[in-house]
Amino acid sequence: MSGRTDKELEGVTLLGEKGTKYKYDYDPSVLETFVNKHQDNDYFVKFNCPEFTSLCPKTGQPDFATIYISYVPDKLMVESKSLKLYLFSFRNHGDFHEDCVNIIMKDLIKLLAPKYIEVWGKFTPRGGISIDPYCNYGKEGTKWKEVAEKRLFYHDMYPERIDNR
Amino acid sequence: MSGRTDKELEGVTLLGEKGTKYKYDYDPSVLETFVNKHQDNDYFVKFNCPEFTSLCPKTGQPDFATIYISYVPDKLMVESKSLKLYLFSFRNHGDFHEDCVNIIMKDLIKLLAPKYIEVWGKFTPRGGISIDPYCNYGKEGTKWKEVAEKRLFYHDMYPERIDNR
Amino acid sequence: MSGRTDKELEGVTLLGEKGTKYKYDYDPSVLETFVNKHQDNDYFVKFNCPEFTSLCPKTGQPDFATIYISYVPDKLMVESKSLKLYLFSFRNHGDFHEDCVNIIMKDLIKLLAPKYIEVWGKFTPRGGISIDPYCNYGKEGTKWKEVAEKRLFYHDMYPERIDNR
Amino acid sequence: MSGRTDKELEGVTLLGEKGTKYKYDYDPSVLETFVNKHQDNDYFVKFNCPEFTSLCPKTGQPDFATIYISYVPDKLMVESKSLKLYLFSFRNHGDFHEDCVNIIMKDLIKLLAPKYIEVWGKFTPRGGISIDPYCNYGKEGTKWKEVAEKRLFYHDMYPERIDNR
Amino acid sequence: MSGRTDKELEGVTLLGEKGTKYKYDYDPSVLETFVNKHQDNDYFVKFNCPEFTSLCPKTGQPDFATIYISYVPDKLMVESKSLKLYLFSFRNHGDFHEDCVNIIMKDLIKLLAPKYIEVWGKFTPRGGISIDPYCNYGKEGTKWKEVAEKRLFYHDMYPERIDNR
Amino acid sequence: MSGRTDKELEGVTLLGEKGTKYKYDYDPSVLETFVNKHQDNDYFVKFNCPEFTSLCPKTGQPDFATIYISYVPDKLMVESKSLKLYLFSFRNHGDFHEDCVNIIMKDLIKLLAPKYIEVWGKFTPRGGISIDPYCNYGKEGTKWKEVAEKRLFYHDMYPERIDNR
Amino acid sequence: MSGRTDKELEGVTLLGEKGTKYKYDYDPSVLETFVNKHQDNDYFVKFNCPEFTSLCPKTGQPDFATIYISYVPDKLMVESKSLKLYLFSFRNHGDFHEDCVNIIMKDLIKLLAPKYIEVWGKFTPRGGISIDPYCNYGKEGTKWKEVAEKRLFYHDMYPERIDNR
Amino acid sequence: MSGRTDKELEGVTLLGEKGTKYKYDYDPSVLETFVNKHQDNDYFVKFNCPEFTSLCPKTGQPDFATIYISYVPDKLMVESKSLKLYLFSFRNHGDFHEDCVNIIMKDLIKLLAPKYIEVWGKFTPRGGISIDPYCNYGKEGTKWKEVAEKRLFYHDMYPERIDNR
Amino acid sequence: MSGRTDKELEGVTLLGEKGTKYKYDYDPSVLETFVNKHQDNDYFVKFNCPEFTSLCPKTGQPDFATIYISYVPDKLMVESKSLKLYLFSFRNHGDFHEDCVNIIMKDLIKLLAPKYIEVWGKFTPRGGISIDPYCNYGKEGTKWKEVAEKRLFYHDMYPERIDNR
Amino acid sequence: MSGRTDKELEGVTLLGEKGTKYKYDYDPSVLETFVNKHQDNDYFVKFNCPEFTSLCPKTGQPDFATIYISYVPDKLMVESKSLKLYLFSFRNHGDFHEDCVNIIMKDLIKLLAPKYIEVWGKFTPRGGISIDPYCNYGKEGTKWKEVAEKRLFYHDMYPERIDNR
Ligand SMILES: [Ca+2]
Ligand SMILES: [Ca+2]
Ligand SMILES: [Ca+2]
Ligand SMILES: [Ca+2]
Ligand SMILES: [Ca+2]
Ligand SMILES: [Ca+2]
Ligand SMILES: [Ca+2]
Ligand SMILES: [Ca+2]
Ligand SMILES: [Ca+2]
Ligand SMILES: [Ca+2]
Ligand SMILES: [Ca+2]
Ligand SMILES: [Ca+2]
Ligand SMILES: [Ca+2]
Ligand SMILES: [Ca+2]
Ligand SMILES: [Ca+2]
Ligand SMILES: [Ca+2]
Repeated sequence: MSGRTDKELEGVTLLGEKGTKYKYDYDPSVLETFVNKHQDNDYFVKFNCPEFTSLCPKTGQPDFATIYISYVPDKLMVESKSLKLYLFSFRNHGDFHEDCVNIIMKDLIKLLAPKYIEVWGKFTPRGGISIDPYCNYGKEGTKWKEVAEKRLFYHDMYPERIDNR
Repeated sequence: MSGRTDKELEGVTLLGEKGTKYKYDYDPSVLETFVNKHQDNDYFVKFNCPEFTSLCPKTGQPDFATIYISYVPDKLMVESKSLKLYLFSFRNHGDFHEDCVNIIMKDLIKLLAPKYIEVWGKFTPRGGISIDPYCNYGKEGTKWKEVAEKRLFYHDMYPERIDNR
Repeated sequence: MSGRTDKELEGVTLLGEKGTKYKYDYDPSVLETFVNKHQDNDYFVKFNCPEFTSLCPKTGQPDFATIYISYVPDKLMVESKSLKLYLFSFRNHGDFHEDCVNIIMKDLIKLLAPKYIEVWGKFTPRGGISIDPYCNYGKEGTKWKEVAEKRLFYHDMYPERIDNR
Repeated sequence: MSGRTDKELEGVTLLGEKGTKYKYDYDPSVLETFVNKHQDNDYFVKFNCPEFTSLCPKTGQPDFATIYISYVPDKLMVESKSLKLYLFSFRNHGDFHEDCVNIIMKDLIKLLAPKYIEVWGKFTPRGGISIDPYCNYGKEGTKWKEVAEKRLFYHDMYPERIDNR
Repeated sequence: MSGRTDKELEGVTLLGEKGTKYKYDYDPSVLETFVNKHQDNDYFVKFNCPEFTSLCPKTGQPDFATIYISYVPDKLMVESKSLKLYLFSFRNHGDFHEDCVNIIMKDLIKLLAPKYIEVWGKFTPRGGISIDPYCNYGKEGTKWKEVAEKRLFYHDMYPERIDNR
Repeated sequence: MSGRTDKELEGVTLLGEKGTKYKYDYDPSVLETFVNKHQDNDYFVKFNCPEFTSLCPKTGQPDFATIYISYVPDKLMVESKSLKLYLFSFRNHGDFHEDCVNIIMKDLIKLLAPKYIEVWGKFTPRGGISIDPYCNYGKEGTKWKEVAEKRLFYHDMYPERIDNR
Repeated sequence: MSGRTDKELEGVTLLGEKGTKYKYDYDPSVLETFVNKHQDNDYFVKFNCPEFTSLCPKTGQPDFATIYISYVPDKLMVESKSLKLYLFSFRNHGDFHEDCVNIIMKDLIKLLAPKYIEVWGKFTPRGGISIDPYCNYGKEGTKWKEVAEKRLFYHDMYPERIDNR
Repeated sequence: MSGRTDKELEGVTLLGEKGTKYKYDYDPSVLETFVNKHQDNDYFVKFNCPEFTSLCPKTGQPDFATIYISYVPDKLMVESKSLKLYLFSFRNHGDFHEDCVNIIMKDLIKLLAPKYIEVWGKFTPRGGISIDPYCNYGKEGTKWKEVAEKRLFYHDMYPERIDNR
Repeated sequence: MSGRTDKELEGVTLLGEKGTKYKYDYDPSVLETFVNKHQDNDYFVKFNCPEFTSLCPKTGQPDFATIYISYVPDKLMVESKSLKLYLFSFRNHGDFHEDCVNIIMKDLIKLLAPKYIEVWGKFTPRGGISIDPYCNYGKEGTKWKEVAEKRLFYHDMYPERIDNR
Repeated sequence: MSGRTDKELEGVTLLGEKGTKYKYDYDPSVLETFVNKHQDNDYFVKFNCPEFTSLCPKTGQPDFATIYISYVPDKLMVESKSLKLYLFSFRNHGDFHEDCVNIIMKDLIKLLAPKYIEVWGKFTPRGGISIDPYCNYGKEGTKWKEVAEKRLFYHDMYPERIDNR
């Protein structure tokens, strides 16, 4: 089979492995990376993650969200099974929606040193109101710093229709 | 449990409390805030509020709307249960759609001194016509003042399809 | 203009009237009827009512629903503006979702003595769960009694998709 | 060109004609028929008519609806351009929604003597409530009489979702 | 490769052939069949055909439709590429919508002698009205004869929403 | 009741009044205004009007459209019931789609002297083609003049999907 | 306030209470009931529960589902906040999808002795395939026993469209 | 009737005429124009044309598309019935999708000398792939030349979802 | 963890295993079963499988489908990961759509001896036409034999809308 | 037939040919081109390709995606049947999603030397997460180089809603 060689898959330990351990306490150390083979051209990678759940920091009640993560890799890329495990580790973590979204972004910046990244959480309603936090980041010293600012300035000018059903 | 500490939740009195009082007369004093833990980076928070109802100032007939509120916090954030109570306080309030939307924005500016805020109301039709007012604001002395102008200038170039059914 | 004559509109006092009074305490006496001109053939009339709001009987918190009312008139029909006023009269009424839907049906049975009627309420979620009660009725001594039973037996075999957004 | 011959098109005078007169006062005499070439097998023909408008009999305010007409022809079929003109003739006609739908059905029964027919009107809301009347008919002495009863008994067990937007 | 053998594909001459001739005059002779390998159990096959076009028999104006064909094979099945060519052969054929749908059904009955077949045409509007004819058939001497009657009796009790856009 | 005072409602004569007269001949004089209470900040007001109907100037055939009107008020705002009456006054008016949309805009400019206004009509098809004209305007001497040009330049780069059903 | 009296709310201890404990280990004892005030007529109550999560019994990986519960009450009704807590108690429970759905039904039968109940789980995909189990029950000695059989026999003849996105 | 006068309709010969000839060989000479009455302000007119069909230049197989045409008129406007006839004239024309779209644009430029025009064709799939060409043009010596370039540069950054069903 | 015990998971060898072998030649031997723990009550299990691909038996061209499988287990249930592997084994298998669907059903009958099973394939179009075969089966000596016949008789009376995009 | 001449179709060998060979090992050599007849004006061509499948480089498990390819041709255009064959050649190719998308773009750049090209892959989920890579390119020495950068900077600011069903 052509495509990625074993060498190019070094560091990817979880994918296809038997007996994966699922952690339910917040743990960014499960994240794994692999090398970006297309560093000559910038490009976007988006992860759609509709199975996110955490806890309310005050009441302990479970919260649910879809998390959208988009980034422009520099040298490293995040392996998607390890990303799944990382997001599962919020299962017993208590934090406000706004905090979760910022934490996810900051952990991925630390892991990947990406050129650009954004994280958008869309939570289900409590008391008839739902909350959708969005944060982003562009690497200092690249054009992406200014792009991040621009994308934030013109974020979500067409909010999706919500009726709680 | 990790996440927000009790100290970081100071000022949040309504969430999870028993015996919440629901006010049905306009009352911005029910709004509560908590501290923004991510002041180092600007980000957006959106509230989707499909359960808004007020009264027509002339006929007393109930009006219904979905209200979308988006803001960029500075030091303070609005707690979502108190926001729910605030919006419920319009239940016996009589005002034109255009006025309600402006009032909500101004109350939140006073409460939060946010960097940016916008409020979009989408009301159900009366006499076959529905009204959707939108207003926004950017803080003097920040880039968000100009952003507010730009977002207003290019507001809603793709109106959603409406057929009253 | 052809169509309904003034005589055929007797009893319809609210439609097009100035200065309608909106009651916000439960009051079935606002309901008005007019004569069914097509008593020779049974037929259905459905009212779609997406602007229903009541209060939680325990917490006082507002609830919201879309109410679907379908009936087969006998001699009388309900005038739609009076139906609107009647539904508005639940605005300050505290009852469980299941009770509201049964009460609406029983008030309309009393008013109209219809051959058949059904009421389906679809409420917005509280705590992540939404409740949709459905009740119906067929007049004793008509085929509609058995029809009501059959329609209940085969009610809602394809529940609509709900994701709280 | 194969297909219907001129002879088989006898009685069709409006289709493709120049200078059609549009009547805006209720006038069933504009309806035209042509011969059913497939009388050996029963079949359905449905007309989707989303451009129906009439007037409120009390206030004179315009009403709007989509009308769905389905029938099983016997010997005659209604020509669709003449049906369009007939529906346009309600433009200045004042009647309740429930009456319009019954009148349309009865005019077509008189014209076509169909084996079966049903008419469903779906109107836009007034005061937050919309009304959808439905009536049907099966020819005496055919199985369609009983079918009409059955179709009425099990009419619309899945009301479409309505939110007035 | 496992699956159908060459012998089992006998009679299939058009599939994968170079230089297919497209006929634009009504021609049922292009239809081809292959043998039903599952004659022990009755089953349905549906063809979705959104690219149907014919001509108005009076004005010559092109008409457009999606045609849905569902059948229960007996010994023979219709090959889909030949079905495509057959439907293309209506391209210059002038007939009323109601006639086209009946003709297609009758040609396929003649070709396949199926246990059951139904054809539903959904045309685009002319003058604001669209027409959707539906016909069906069950083979004499089988249970499908009665099934055909039942399916016709309860055809399309939930007409799809149409707004001409 | 708090909200708009009677004084702030001066000039609003139609809302909640009995015996409204519906004019069906084009008449911009029915339009009424009220004072903008939020002149300190520019904001948008959109009217969704899905019940527009006029006549073809050549054939007299009725046309149907949804009209979307968005404006930024200066000192005056248009009262929505009077807007409804104004749009109803096109009911017997014959004009091309492109002309109707421009006329509506110009009448509202004359009435309101708004900072910005745009009108988008989306008509139902005739002969398989539908027409959607769009025009806009920005007040001389304000930034909105240039905004109008920009919004026109980048108008509708994502046309909605249309299939005439 | 009219509606349910305190006495009629006896046994409802969780609704509106402060300091709710969220259990994450399977615990049917959290379920609470209240009295059915409409025992004279059978009716349906549906709960839409899109926030269900459990664990895979073999891998420990979290699973996610929307659970639809519909029942016809006899003497008792389930209180919705206690239902929420019960469903949350599956959060750390490991079972196959098919088992979870049967367990939920059986716990509610034990609690409520309902005339009829059905539970439909719709899970998110693993390995490209999603699983939707459905079970139901009708009380011995009532017509609902036969109804349950019929509803099972004709369950889901129109599977919803699934494309994993 | 007010609106366009006969004089303002000069040159419009096809609209409402009896005995229209439908040409099925490519013929731009059928196009007709009328005068733009609103030359003082630039505005957009869009034609939605879902009934386009041509032939594959190599195989002769029919192709189907929806064509969206948007233009900013200068002195002349295209009459919509003549546009319909022009598009019908592709019915027997063989060309690649990319060529059809360019040809339509160039014919309309020649006819109308518009300030701006764009044509977007969305074809149905062949072999699992569908093709959507888009071209545009801005008049030399006007701002629309640069606008055309900008609109091309930022064309279709959000491709619609396609799954071939 | 509560739920299925290891003993109750006997026979499930693939789930969570490392180094799964993916076979791309038709191989029903990969299917695995586990014991039905709820044999006291009949219930449905549906698998949604949108990632099915096979080959055309004549041209070798890949075909794509969504396969819906619904069954009522008797003693055995099919494990979903093994079902995935089985469906993948059609990847290099050449057969007509109608044959694939029948083969899948027959292999599962052989494996599970279910009380009832049905398989519905919805393929993407070739040459503008898509094919959706449906077959089903009920076990001899149970009520499900008659149910299977009934479900087939009333199969798909509301074909989904298809436009190939 | 008018349109493309045989000469203008030179190099197009696969379209309409009998006996096409389907390769299932990655092979860019199957791609064919034809001449751009509209080199005087830049324009876009988009290919919608919902039938893409490859293999996971580590586990060998099949992956599925919809690929959207948009380009601005210079002298050459890619023939769509050859594009289909090229995409089929990934069927047995193992590579990460991010790699596939970049490889497709680079092969087409090499083939066509286009002014601009972009490729967006939208894959189905594995483990609850789906991945959507996007890359683009603008030709050195043309304005399209800067356009590519801009389009990347403002890519996908409105991620589509994903719920894995
Ligand atoms: Ca809620
Ligand atoms: Ca709508
Ligand atoms: Ca709606
Ligand atoms: Ca909730
Ligand atoms: Ca939803
Ligand atoms: Ca929703
Ligand atoms: Ca209304
Ligand atoms: Ca039309
Ligand atoms: Ca539509
Ligand atoms: Ca449509
Ligand atoms: Ca989906
Ligand atoms: Ca689609
Ligand atoms: Ca195709
Ligand atoms: Ca589609
Ligand atoms: Ca998965
Ligand atoms: Ca989805």
